[in-house]
Amino acid sequence: MSNVYDIAYDLEKALRNSSDFQDLKKAYDEVNANEETKNLFEEFRDLQMSLQQKQMTGQEITEEEVQKAQGVFQDVQQNETISKLMAAEQRMSMIVTEMNKIITKPLEELYGPMVSN
Amino acid sequence: MSNVYDIAYDLEKALRNSSDFQDLKKAYDEVNANEETKNLFEEFRDLQMSLQQKQMTGQEITEEEVQKAQGVFQDVQQNETISKLMAAEQRMSMIVTEMNKIITKPLEELYGPMVSN
Ligand SMILES: [Ca+2]
Ligand SMILES: [Ca+2]
Repeated sequence: MSNVYDIAYDLEKALRNSSDFQDLKKAYDEVNANEETKNLFEEFRDLQMSLQQKQMTGQEITEEEVQKAQGVFQDVQQNETISKLMAAEQRMSMIVTEMNKIITKPLEELYGPMVSN
Repeated sequence: MSNVYDIAYDLEKALRNSSDFQDLKKAYDEVNANEETKNLFEEFRDLQMSLQQKQMTGQEITEEEVQKAQGVFQDVQQNETISKLMAAEQRMSMIVTEMNKIITKPLEELYGPMVSN
């Protein structure tokens, strides 16, 4: 049997060479090549993170914050370069989630579907 | 280049056949074969989860709960079968964490060390 680490490194290489990752890298570079687009994307990410943080710690999100988030989200959706990046991120995130589901299958079978690693 | 899913399934198989997973499975079956040990382990897991839940949602943990947890934890530590299972779980959890680190390396290189999937 091959060593699990050898296979994990093969998987890393295959993911890195996949068109999904290459598309993501290209979209990411495109967003960062334009200062305005880069700033908008960073503003969106910061806002998203601060709202998630508040939700997780049970802090109230103000009406003002909701409106600001909606505005930034609209700008982001209208930006083709960022939209392309977000779609590529979603695909990559889905693939990584599926990889994790596959490799934790033995554990899930042992413990039932409620296990968290 | 091999398909990432094919490699992920190879990795799953290798993990399933690894001595680390086989040891974990054996330890898990041993704990569950004895009703008393099984109940103690379940009590410990339930308690652990409820305390984590409280911490995550910012609820206060009472002195009584801390003492109860210490008592159960002591019992668990003195139980050789459970201790063996917990050591095997820790090893397996470390391996899964390392697998995840390896396969998310391309993403980490792209986004920097702060990325979460
Ligand atoms: Ca706007
Ligand atoms: Ca006791």
